[in-house]
Amino acid sequence: MSSYRHIVIFQFKDSASPAKVQGVVEAFKALPGKLPAIQAFEWGTNVSPEGLDQGFTHVFTLTFASKEALEKQYLHEPAHQAFVAMLGGLLEKALVVDYNAA
Amino acid sequence: MSSYRHIVIFQFKDSASPAKVQGVVEAFKALPGKLPAIQAFEWGTNVSPEGLDQGFTHVFTLTFASKEALEKQYLHEPAHQAFVAMLGGLLEKALVVDYNAA
Repeated sequence: MSSYRHIVIFQFKDSASPAKVQGVVEAFKALPGKLPAIQAFEWGTNVSPEGLDQGFTHVFTLTFASKEALEKQYLHEPAHQAFVAMLGGLLEKALVVDYNAA
Repeated sequence: MSSYRHIVIFQFKDSASPAKVQGVVEAFKALPGKLPAIQAFEWGTNVSPEGLDQGFTHVFTLTFASKEALEKQYLHEPAHQAFVAMLGGLLEKALVVDYNAA
């Protein structure tokens, strides 16, 4: 009954326009409708008061049944790859960590 | 009905012994029993296959009712501060991002 969490954290380049950033968010939000392996999706912009965000601003948490579901039904799917292609030139940095929730 | 997610990601120093690392994990896991503002707690070690983890290995997701709850009923509580004090000398780096889940 464990859940596999896939956490994606972005910092956009200063040159990324608000419209482009919003486009990335909307495209990410659209993925669960295209890829049913995504069991849950949530996101938000960073509001931590602690100052340990290292410049990251956008956080997305996706839930899959398992690492196998991520690998076989998400990472290489055309809808996901089209999303990744959208990111080109817009990201200052990205961090991805996954864990089996315990 | 939104939830405030508090994501804490650690990389330990190479010099941090497995016992010390485990002690940090156990102490973090004990916080929800001491601080009822923590509505949910989960954690795991990074298993992402994507290679975008930047060396981070431990991920903790805490849920609060609101940013106010984090600020007034968590950050400055003695139990949390004792936990933070445990981290001294053990962390290579830490990243903290919070968001209101949408």
